[in-house]
Amino acid sequence: MRLALAQLDALIGDLEGNAARILAAGRLAAEHGAELLLTPELSLWGYPPRDLLLRPALVARQAVQLQALADGLPSGLAALVGVADPVPGGGTPGLWNAVALVRGGGRDGDGGGWQVVARKRLLPSYDVFDESRYFLAGQRPARLEWGQRQGGRPWRLGLSVCEDLWVEQDLQQLRVAGVDPIGELAELGVDLLLNLSASPYGRGKLALRRQLGQRAAARAGCPLVYVNQVGGNDELVFDGASFVLDAGGALLGQGPCCREALLLWDAADPHGSWRQLPLPAGAGATTAVSAGTAGLAPPEMEQLLRALVLGVGDYARKCGFGGALLGLSGGIGSALVAVIAAAALGAERVRALRLPSPWSSAGSLEDAQGLAERLGLELQTVPIAPLMQGFDQALTPALGQPPTGVTAENLQSRIRGTVLMALANQQGRLLLSTGNKSELAVGYCTLYGDMNGGLAVIGDLYKTTVFDLCDWIDSPASSECRRELGLPATGELIGAAIRTKPPSAELRPDQKDSDSLPDYAVLDPLLRRIVESMATPEQLIAEGIDPELAQRVQGLLRRAEFKRRQAPPVLKVSGRSFGGGWRMPIAAAG
Amino acid sequence: MRLALAQLDALIGDLEGNAARILAAGRLAAEHGAELLLTPELSLWGYPPRDLLLRPALVARQAVQLQALADGLPSGLAALVGVADPVPGGGTPGLWNAVALVRGGGRDGDGGGWQVVARKRLLPSYDVFDESRYFLAGQRPARLEWGQRQGGRPWRLGLSVCEDLWVEQDLQQLRVAGVDPIGELAELGVDLLLNLSASPYGRGKLALRRQLGQRAAARAGCPLVYVNQVGGNDELVFDGASFVLDAGGALLGQGPCCREALLLWDAADPHGSWRQLPLPAGAGATTAVSAGTAGLAPPEMEQLLRALVLGVGDYARKCGFGGALLGLSGGIGSALVAVIAAAALGAERVRALRLPSPWSSAGSLEDAQGLAERLGLELQTVPIAPLMQGFDQALTPALGQPPTGVTAENLQSRIRGTVLMALANQQGRLLLSTGNKSELAVGYCTLYGDMNGGLAVIGDLYKTTVFDLCDWIDSPASSECRRELGLPATGELIGAAIRTKPPSAELRPDQKDSDSLPDYAVLDPLLRRIVESMATPEQLIAEGIDPELAQRVQGLLRRAEFKRRQAPPVLKVSGRSFGGGWRMPIAAAG
Repeated sequence: MRLALAQLDALIGDLEGNAARILAAGRLAAEHGAELLLTPELSLWGYPPRDLLLRPALVARQAVQLQALADGLPSGLAALVGVADPVPGGGTPGLWNAVALVRGGGRDGDGGGWQVVARKRLLPSYDVFDESRYFLAGQRPARLEWGQRQGGRPWRLGLSVCEDLWVEQDLQQLRVAGVDPIGELAELGVDLLLNLSASPYGRGKLALRRQLGQRAAARAGCPLVYVNQVGGNDELVFDGASFVLDAGGALLGQGPCCREALLLWDAADPHGSWRQLPLPAGAGATTAVSAGTAGLAPPEMEQLLRALVLGVGDYARKCGFGGALLGLSGGIGSALVAVIAAAALGAERVRALRLPSPWSSAGSLEDAQGLAERLGLELQTVPIAPLMQGFDQALTPALGQPPTGVTAENLQSRIRGTVLMALANQQGRLLLSTGNKSELAVGYCTLYGDMNGGLAVIGDLYKTTVFDLCDWIDSPASSECRRELGLPATGELIGAAIRTKPPSAELRPDQKDSDSLPDYAVLDPLLRRIVESMATPEQLIAEGIDPELAQRVQGLLRRAEFKRRQAPPVLKVSGRSFGGGWRMPIAAAG
Repeated sequence: MRLALAQLDALIGDLEGNAARILAAGRLAAEHGAELLLTPELSLWGYPPRDLLLRPALVARQAVQLQALADGLPSGLAALVGVADPVPGGGTPGLWNAVALVRGGGRDGDGGGWQVVARKRLLPSYDVFDESRYFLAGQRPARLEWGQRQGGRPWRLGLSVCEDLWVEQDLQQLRVAGVDPIGELAELGVDLLLNLSASPYGRGKLALRRQLGQRAAARAGCPLVYVNQVGGNDELVFDGASFVLDAGGALLGQGPCCREALLLWDAADPHGSWRQLPLPAGAGATTAVSAGTAGLAPPEMEQLLRALVLGVGDYARKCGFGGALLGLSGGIGSALVAVIAAAALGAERVRALRLPSPWSSAGSLEDAQGLAERLGLELQTVPIAPLMQGFDQALTPALGQPPTGVTAENLQSRIRGTVLMALANQQGRLLLSTGNKSELAVGYCTLYGDMNGGLAVIGDLYKTTVFDLCDWIDSPASSECRRELGLPATGELIGAAIRTKPPSAELRPDQKDSDSLPDYAVLDPLLRRIVESMATPEQLIAEGIDPELAQRVQGLLRRAEFKRRQAPPVLKVSGRSFGGGWRMPIAAAG
């Protein structure tokens, strides 16, 4: 049996377009002799469809697209398509997260049609996931008989959807309460496990998925095929990297990271034939992010960079932006975002702006210029001193004096944010926000100022991770990756001057981040404990952290909640980012 | 048996403070002979605690506070307290939404202590609710034996928590799939139904809650006591209005709307003794919003006004703001917000700012001044023309020309937003955002401009509702309410000039909203269908709406998603507001 794994990049809610993409993949697969096409979880919708699932008329339109697929797919090919299956009689929630088997050949009167064959059983409602908002849990294990094995017996396919595989408490941080879908399939007896997923990128996630797959294969005593969505959808980046394991858990093949692909695998000859085909380009095509070495996970920093590049590229493309814009301060954060944007969109579509104030150092201006030159970005400069004076004059009557302290600092940041938005508006560009996770955590950022933008590109990277990633980008190890991403492949890209200067917002003379904040090397591990592990100050103190420091960091985090509530979507790369998976009250204690 | 209903306003996550508030209510209740004190759902936390529930160390601290309550409450009094009950062994989710019975007299060695006696069975995970994120469903009906009835038999109390009462598909829009907790209690047999709730205000909600209560009382053949939380918590406003129904569904008493209170009711003498006591003032005290007529629901517009006033007052108080600030354009939206702010905080703590541009009409400036005078607000004026010129000059080199069109309009709005934030920062005031739901829906608002603020006060009121509410405020019918809210009670407050002028953003010469948008009388009903009823354009067209109009409005709504993602919290008063209950993808079709 020849299987095709379609690692697709869907536009959320675009049922017609996504069906067309599945159809194109199916035709290509059939040309190469495949019998069964596997697509990701909710592949007809793209994941996560969020509240689009609450539109009954949109849900009803699925049937039209599924029939069109049955009509359009060739006879002899069937596809497993992720659908939202309405619960008869409605109710709340009113859907199942399901898989439809679509048999091709409908146009030839050849028995083509579709039916739901599996319903997701474990519904994640943690972190960014809200599946209990939309879905009821499936109640039965889904075993599908298909084709013929040697000897004439049909293949017994064990179907599962994403979280259904996440049943190993000791491997994963969270385990959704409920049944053990893999265990039930193993008990029924299956010849092949299939998992249709939409699993977002996260550091270390690729290895974790494979470990979970190995456990499942071992329990069921059969190979496992894992198909993952690829592409950026708002804050989430799906990295693909679909794979096949044999019954012993050995990796038979792995799809590319962060790129669409069609993968072929012959189930009857597990060790031999694994092939990878590029999908035909189309409206739904992923921004080209290169494959990495198939079958091997790229190094951690490379995966991170590729995920961020995909996130920016897909957000811009799916929102219809022709180009991007960012403020280039000469600091390391905006430098990293400039690199990511240039890789995602091409340097010719990214414009950089310097916005010097009287407190900007000559070094920062030079560093920004040097970076723009190395990347090939068009750079413009808009000095803000006259605007600062204008606001001082305008505000003095109302305040009784010109603005001072943090007010004056915020004002500078908001002038810059307003200039950037004017350019973004007039030129139809996506403004990229350059703040990092450490800043967002402690509120070292200005709402309606430097937080402005459609996407917070590195908002889930602690400052220390920003340094690490920039060090890697400037190292010889990144050369091949940079070349594939269309970046200059040799020499330092960001440059030592930017990477090694002490962090400063340059909002007052000789200001350093360390005037207001603990060193990032101290701060970031504390933030990680509080944000990712939900530790309280009392716990940190018990662990030996200075009590004043623990309380201070917790207080800063709490008081910045109102800023984060109004932040742009943050590309998520960690276990908990400031976005849909961080739901804290603002007016609150604790 | 004398019951006390404590309609409390909690600070989210402030376990110590909330326990102190429960203790104060319990002591007062005991002084008045009560045996059993009822508090709202999750009363130890305040509702909704959101991701604070994911902090294990905070969850563990409940036990300390519950024991302190057992120690502090007098012997002879017990309290039903809403708690998050950890599931042994953890898991995801790892809590039950539960009720603890806390028996007083612990300090006297008199058997005081606490135990969990009920677990919520139906967990809302729709709209703003995320209970499946935190809680497992309770599996058993909770019947508690308590005290003595005439004849010596104990009272059989049927406990339920909020959603457990919402089991009447024909009355409510949504019905959480699952068991029928009221039906199971009725089958077991109970003498009294108790429901501990945290049910947010919404138009028509008070009558709906009472209808659900009547059904439950009829099914169980016994009276029902409903205790609701009061107070504003970020976007949600809880209106209290706790009530008692007899077995026939007749209303025996109702607590005040939008104000804390302690209510006493003698279960043995259902028709006679219903009393209402003010709670002692304290750190957790609700901003004084008057009671309305106890036992009767105030008119719809009055309820709406009181809810908004409570929402603003509590947000400012709980966030620690001493005062508020808003831009007064002379238009009806900012006028309404000024009235609400003056009622919530007192006129002396609200400052208004006029920010005229060359396109501001003399009438608007006069209207703003007149309103500020009538309300007693301090009014300042900061002309923005020099700042507009400054930005034009600064941007011309980068753009090749001064900004034009929507860019120029956005620029004016952002200059105003920046001036307002400077004053808010320098004076430590809460900036109130004055945009309405129609504007937020179609994107007729500027991100980082007029959308700026800590709270979008009327962001869940369509423009036509803004008119309706202002008409009511200016009518003689509002006189008593205005007096109670500390507003001038006679004459027109907003004034006909503001209420009847054609809506205009005044961002270019002679601009009217109707240049860009359908009339609000046409637009608002369409938006209601799309936003509240999740209709698609196809449905609207099938209902007879002009196809071009339906597609246009849907397109405007879709393209404004990125703005709403960065909007301040919107006080929710409708079935679906732009906030936590509106989870739409940005980069999407449909």
